[in-house]
Amino acid sequence: MGKKLTSRSEDYSKWYNELVVMADLAENSGVRGMMVIKPYGYAIWEKIQAELDKKFKETGHENAYFPLFIPKSYFSKEASHVDGFAKECAVVTHYRLKNDENGKVVVDEDAKLEEELIVRPTSETIIWDTYRKWIESYRDLPLLINQWANVVRWEMRTRLFLRTAEFLWQEGHTAHATKKEAIIEAEQMMNVYADFAENFMAMPVIRGFKTESERFAGALETYSIEALMQDGKALQAGTSHFLGQNFAKAFDVQFTSKEGKKEHVWATSWGVSTRLMGGLIMTHSDDKGLVLPPNLAPHQVVIVPIYRNDDQFDEISEKVAEMTKELRAMGVSVKFDKRDTYKPGWKFAEWELKGVPVRIAIGPKDLENGTVEVARRDNLTKEVVESDSIAEYVSELLKEIQNSLFTKAIDYRTEHTTKVDSFDEFKEVLEGKGGFIEAHWDGSAETEEEIKKLTKATIRCIPIDAKEEEGTCILTGKPSTKRVLFAKAY
Amino acid sequence: MGKKLTSRSEDYSKWYNELVVMADLAENSGVRGMMVIKPYGYAIWEKIQAELDKKFKETGHENAYFPLFIPKSYFSKEASHVDGFAKECAVVTHYRLKNDENGKVVVDEDAKLEEELIVRPTSETIIWDTYRKWIESYRDLPLLINQWANVVRWEMRTRLFLRTAEFLWQEGHTAHATKKEAIIEAEQMMNVYADFAENFMAMPVIRGFKTESERFAGALETYSIEALMQDGKALQAGTSHFLGQNFAKAFDVQFTSKEGKKEHVWATSWGVSTRLMGGLIMTHSDDKGLVLPPNLAPHQVVIVPIYRNDDQFDEISEKVAEMTKELRAMGVSVKFDKRDTYKPGWKFAEWELKGVPVRIAIGPKDLENGTVEVARRDNLTKEVVESDSIAEYVSELLKEIQNSLFTKAIDYRTEHTTKVDSFDEFKEVLEGKGGFIEAHWDGSAETEEEIKKLTKATIRCIPIDAKEEEGTCILTGKPSTKRVLFAKAY
Repeated sequence: MGKKLTSRSEDYSKWYNELVVMADLAENSGVRGMMVIKPYGYAIWEKIQAELDKKFKETGHENAYFPLFIPKSYFSKEASHVDGFAKECAVVTHYRLKNDENGKVVVDEDAKLEEELIVRPTSETIIWDTYRKWIESYRDLPLLINQWANVVRWEMRTRLFLRTAEFLWQEGHTAHATKKEAIIEAEQMMNVYADFAENFMAMPVIRGFKTESERFAGALETYSIEALMQDGKALQAGTSHFLGQNFAKAFDVQFTSKEGKKEHVWATSWGVSTRLMGGLIMTHSDDKGLVLPPNLAPHQVVIVPIYRNDDQFDEISEKVAEMTKELRAMGVSVKFDKRDTYKPGWKFAEWELKGVPVRIAIGPKDLENGTVEVARRDNLTKEVVESDSIAEYVSELLKEIQNSLFTKAIDYRTEHTTKVDSFDEFKEVLEGKGGFIEAHWDGSAETEEEIKKLTKATIRCIPIDAKEEEGTCILTGKPSTKRVLFAKAY
Repeated sequence: MGKKLTSRSEDYSKWYNELVVMADLAENSGVRGMMVIKPYGYAIWEKIQAELDKKFKETGHENAYFPLFIPKSYFSKEASHVDGFAKECAVVTHYRLKNDENGKVVVDEDAKLEEELIVRPTSETIIWDTYRKWIESYRDLPLLINQWANVVRWEMRTRLFLRTAEFLWQEGHTAHATKKEAIIEAEQMMNVYADFAENFMAMPVIRGFKTESERFAGALETYSIEALMQDGKALQAGTSHFLGQNFAKAFDVQFTSKEGKKEHVWATSWGVSTRLMGGLIMTHSDDKGLVLPPNLAPHQVVIVPIYRNDDQFDEISEKVAEMTKELRAMGVSVKFDKRDTYKPGWKFAEWELKGVPVRIAIGPKDLENGTVEVARRDNLTKEVVESDSIAEYVSELLKEIQNSLFTKAIDYRTEHTTKVDSFDEFKEVLEGKGGFIEAHWDGSAETEEEIKKLTKATIRCIPIDAKEEEGTCILTGKPSTKRVLFAKAY
């Protein structure tokens, strides 16, 4: 708390890194690229998990758990899949340590694995190897399974939550009898993610298709949700893949149809990760620290007592107990910060830094007047409220804050979404205010690559609601039928 | 469902292995020693997690997440710790794959890690390396943290749930200002585990201290809960360790006391794992399959309709909807098994195999009479019950089943706990009915080891409520002041 947070305008990237640590969300560990998720950050992740898990179950999915290690040979069975992940695989080669002649702990060379094991970067291969045993007939389909797990991708340049060598995620893996069903599932899960992002994280997203070069390794179609951060850069917040029959063929997963015919199964996979924490932070937070939407705040309300002596403290505590009971009855989570080791001003600053949506301060004068002071974290306004009606007031206020954060983010995105029709304009916007750029593209991977090379901007997605519209590619002038969404991205 | 389950008397071990797979709990994967936890098994694990997590939070703990990989050098800092785990460590040595000249996927030798990384077998070292940064003053204590995670221990002989190369668990790691506080914490968590085992799993446990040779590597005291399985073998179901200042010293974690003095922090750690699933299965199940205590059953009630035509099915469904609503209102989880691909008899057998506590069958005659048939899984009895009072009836019945399972398990344990006063008697009981044996021991590691060598029985614990009693060691005849608990163990 001693240090002051760097402002966003001064250095956005530094602001982010400092905020994550200072708000007690996460920190770097002694292991290269791997983070420690601190209790306050993990409490937010638990809320994300709980809500998503509920949504997955409501849409008919069950959880299961598959091995952390994948034999190298499995991994190689789907060619484009291994190409996509080979460069970032942590490899287990030995299974024992020993003391050498000097008493130093070393790897025991006699305990070398016959076949190396890959620490899962994603689980399609091990799961489809299992599905072969689970799927025999159309009666076994659809198979709708999700796994909450840790995965490892050996990233060279890492950033807390956004890109770490290990991250936590969920990965859904479903098997279907028909292509159509699998596509509907992949779309459904994109929509589940979008709904969660918008209604829980208050983070507006664009739904769309990835271009071929940005697809998941092994997918025929990748759907994604794309959010816009306050620095004008995009964040891919979740993806859902239609995998066709690629993994079913690689792992020989066939089912007997109603008509008695053997057919390969159709697949999807879909995932979101602790990366969402990065999106949450960068969508709402400000120069004073984290700003949390009420739906994901570990404490929605913090109550800070202001007192000079024990008698005052006791009287306040009594009133607080009453208010807390009323607030909890309305489903509001409350923390009474009664630490006597810190002063109120220090506590105010701490809870601002940690993004608690509503702060209530109560002192002897308030007790006399039957009031409390209510401060909103999102717009930093304060209001004096009658303590008798506090539960209804706060309950309404939390809804208002949730909505207001979403509206603010939508407004930001609207202001930072630009239609351009020439490459000069494209570059000008990119170097200026940034954000999403809607532009025509000729549909070729070469053009996409060239634009990326020239500007660092990538096609974030082809929005699912992109209108048919005659146009010409901003780079090549070739004809195009719809605008796609460009941005620089995390 | 085609295969018949081996009976316990025929081959207990085979019965267990078959049951785990046939009841859809778990199965072996293609990775040596690593299991796949199937959806039905995982649903039980989720219930275990939810209840334990609630208990941890009620006792003031917060969740966090620490890295999967631990640098070898961290691991070596606490000498007895590394000795205890070195022989079962999976080691990551490389971080990239590549294609060789023949296009085969191989480990890229250019991507060798400077320092090998150990896949965590437990997290004391990485966590205490982190605590050094988190703990400065007495104000930062106690630090009460838990982590839900996967760990890897390279076991040579594995069995589903009981001993697997990867397992899921929780590990609590706490830091305290005083020795006394840390001991109280370690005892508290043993009691939390015991309470959970007895009241949720209906699995009676003996609380006690481990002998020095059975202690956790790095602990000054290990508390454990020990359960007795139906084959007379003991299962260590959870452990809680008082770690003294060992890890604080190894990782230089000091705090400034109220008096301004620098002191090393006192530590505990405690964990239970998916091994509990093995205990759950072996405590209650029978030759027809799994028997689940209602508190942990994914479905407490399954309803099977019996009908000849669509009209009958529709009428039954209407009644079932009504009953389901009433049952759910009383907090009972219900599954209506309306699959038309299977016959009622097949469904009965399947839900018996899967251990659903209560099965309700309803046919046209029941509709006429306003009744249903209610079958208990635990004692396989049936009763005709008025459908109007089904919710109250079932709600009471579930409580009765929960209690009855516990009582039955207690009775089994009482019958299989024997006091012996000579080594001949000791061997006789061990080779006969097995179970727990209360016997005098001279307190030396040599005697303990010798008894183990001669009989395969180990000291499970020194029960915390063991009475002071004059006696002589069954092996050496040396004096002893209390009886300890012996058994063959999983």
